[in-house]
Amino acid sequence: MQYHFSDRVKALKPSEIREILKAASVPGMIPFAAGNPAPEAFPAKAVQEILQSIMHNQPEKALQYGVTEGYEPLRTAVGQYMKTDYRIGKPFDALLITAGAQQVMDLTTKVLCNEGDTVICENPSFIGSLNCFRSYNVNLVGIDMQPDGMDLEQLEQALKTQPNVRFIYTIPNFQNPTGITMSLEKRQAVYALAKQYGVLILEDNPYGELRVQGEGLPAIKSMDDEGIVIYAGSFSKILAPGIRVGFAIAPEPLLAKMTVGKQTSDVHTPMLSQMLVHEWMTNYDFRGHITNIREIYRRKMDLMCDRIDNECRGFLQYRKPEGGLFIWATLPENIPVLAFCEKATRRMVAVVPGTAFLTQAGKPCHAIRLNFSTPADSKIMDGMKVLGALSAEYRAGAVQ
Amino acid sequence: MQYHFSDRVKALKPSEIREILKAASVPGMIPFAAGNPAPEAFPAKAVQEILQSIMHNQPEKALQYGVTEGYEPLRTAVGQYMKTDYRIGKPFDALLITAGAQQVMDLTTKVLCNEGDTVICENPSFIGSLNCFRSYNVNLVGIDMQPDGMDLEQLEQALKTQPNVRFIYTIPNFQNPTGITMSLEKRQAVYALAKQYGVLILEDNPYGELRVQGEGLPAIKSMDDEGIVIYAGSFSKILAPGIRVGFAIAPEPLLAKMTVGKQTSDVHTPMLSQMLVHEWMTNYDFRGHITNIREIYRRKMDLMCDRIDNECRGFLQYRKPEGGLFIWATLPENIPVLAFCEKATRRMVAVVPGTAFLTQAGKPCHAIRLNFSTPADSKIMDGMKVLGALSAEYRAGAVQ
Repeated sequence: MQYHFSDRVKALKPSEIREILKAASVPGMIPFAAGNPAPEAFPAKAVQEILQSIMHNQPEKALQYGVTEGYEPLRTAVGQYMKTDYRIGKPFDALLITAGAQQVMDLTTKVLCNEGDTVICENPSFIGSLNCFRSYNVNLVGIDMQPDGMDLEQLEQALKTQPNVRFIYTIPNFQNPTGITMSLEKRQAVYALAKQYGVLILEDNPYGELRVQGEGLPAIKSMDDEGIVIYAGSFSKILAPGIRVGFAIAPEPLLAKMTVGKQTSDVHTPMLSQMLVHEWMTNYDFRGHITNIREIYRRKMDLMCDRIDNECRGFLQYRKPEGGLFIWATLPENIPVLAFCEKATRRMVAVVPGTAFLTQAGKPCHAIRLNFSTPADSKIMDGMKVLGALSAEYRAGAVQ
Repeated sequence: MQYHFSDRVKALKPSEIREILKAASVPGMIPFAAGNPAPEAFPAKAVQEILQSIMHNQPEKALQYGVTEGYEPLRTAVGQYMKTDYRIGKPFDALLITAGAQQVMDLTTKVLCNEGDTVICENPSFIGSLNCFRSYNVNLVGIDMQPDGMDLEQLEQALKTQPNVRFIYTIPNFQNPTGITMSLEKRQAVYALAKQYGVLILEDNPYGELRVQGEGLPAIKSMDDEGIVIYAGSFSKILAPGIRVGFAIAPEPLLAKMTVGKQTSDVHTPMLSQMLVHEWMTNYDFRGHITNIREIYRRKMDLMCDRIDNECRGFLQYRKPEGGLFIWATLPENIPVLAFCEKATRRMVAVVPGTAFLTQAGKPCHAIRLNFSTPADSKIMDGMKVLGALSAEYRAGAVQ
């Protein structure tokens, strides 16, 4: 039978980098292409204790249907944490527990965008969010990144000229894939522009707690006096991604629609996952845990940067990010990035070409994204040796 | 700020029955309106043991990201179970683990339907699925139910005349809300019509294992030689709904698109939930558990039917279903159903008016849906006493 698909999924074509990403799952491959948290950063013992306690004390609650909005004690705990630690959440805001932050992107687009409406995002940006927006057949407009965040002139131009702009998508902290942190001035400017043009902001902050150097900057959501910011938070990087718990904080009328959207998508987020996060936030020193994992990521980032410097000797240029999980490294302009990545993958080091993260295919991009959280320290060293050798061959013109 | 929503969520208007459903969550309310499994049907002890074992033996796997397709050992176990016990799954089929069966409805509609395309469904049908279809702005066409399943003449008429019919949605076993089981002849006829008109079938079978009388009938999916059936299965009713694990079995090209859709929605179903189901299916007598919970539901259904007969004395007419969780009871034609439900709810017995399950608002419906799985036996007795008294008042003309 010939299947007839909707226009929205036709838009999701397999890309040239798909094969590289597929190869990344081959056993023995050094995973610089991934975005997984370090396994040693999981509070596994605490999780074991908590699950035991939940099944001992509240088995029925953990196994029965819950409400779409989320487990009430968790909503309260997350709301308080965001309020006290990040000044996020105004009286007009409400909170929805989601299936990871990914679902916040999905529900936001679902409730705000008709096909053909415009979504503005940073360029490059997180491939999972870009594909989510694409799956709604929107007009995706990328704004080039500068070292302190997106290009404001391009942004204003897009706001002025693009049809039906519904929201601006941004990852202000240690952006995926560039590692860039948006400056305070730009956060204020983006907020002001959104307000001026009557457009919403979707602020995605999965890595915010993983700062390894520099001062924390206020979230755009913390400036939200007019109710124009949807904040996407996640427990994937500070607790564990496998449990799939994230949240949205947004003005109540928006959140009410997102809740209806979630109800028709998956009814609610698993109770066991939600109760686990709640217990962890309530009865464990989760702030202490975050401090500890920051140390892990600081060490791993330092190690990878040190190895880039020593093994690749200027062939890979990068700016050290203030946090997050990725190094965005640029190759010399004459080097074909895709071929470099293919060769690295064939030598069992998986790296993603920067083109994967562009809003539009076919544009040039000389960067690769390197992840230091997934591989063990020894694998970071082994993998960088391979990239160093490959760099040397390219530099010597020895690559056919 | 005035928010501007997408057309698809504008279609999801709050309905007249929303208040009744809201009232159903008031503490002390007898929950005939719900659809929750009986808490005593949860294998809580097994779950506790399994979680302990998972966190002891494979904590990293349980906490780390998984692949969108689902946890491989679970996919294998579910595939084998469906094959051996229900002859479901052909060589051209593949299997996707989902966030409950609800996500199968969502992904099916996402990959198959443009706005304005037609989805054919039974009328009345499950409100969660209807709202899911509505959220894609499709042309929803209801086919009236007969005691042995949907009206085939109406179905063929719709297939002939409606624009771009993409799929037929059916719950063949103990349908929600009517409790009707589609006969073998109609299953074959629906399959033949779908084949003839080049339309897919979405077969939703959340209650199939909860048969309490009569012989099991083959799933439509078991007849699928041409790859036109998408099967939605669920662990919500046989293990626990709070863990949100369901699955789709569908021809590989369809399933591949659904997998891309899931990736942009929630990345993957929580690993802990998936590993839990796998362990339960592999190391526990889950078929024995299903036999046991059938006994629970047989007892509760018998009790409710007995109480309807004794308390309402013909005021509520019903056909005893062969399984599932609901009794579909019809009131005399002169009784305003909505008012009856409102009065019942005010007397602390929550019941849903049949109108909630219609594909189109405004049509007459003289039925109510009664759930016997959620309330304890004593609550079934208490609740039916209240409905009996209300029935007597109506019959005596004593209701203003």
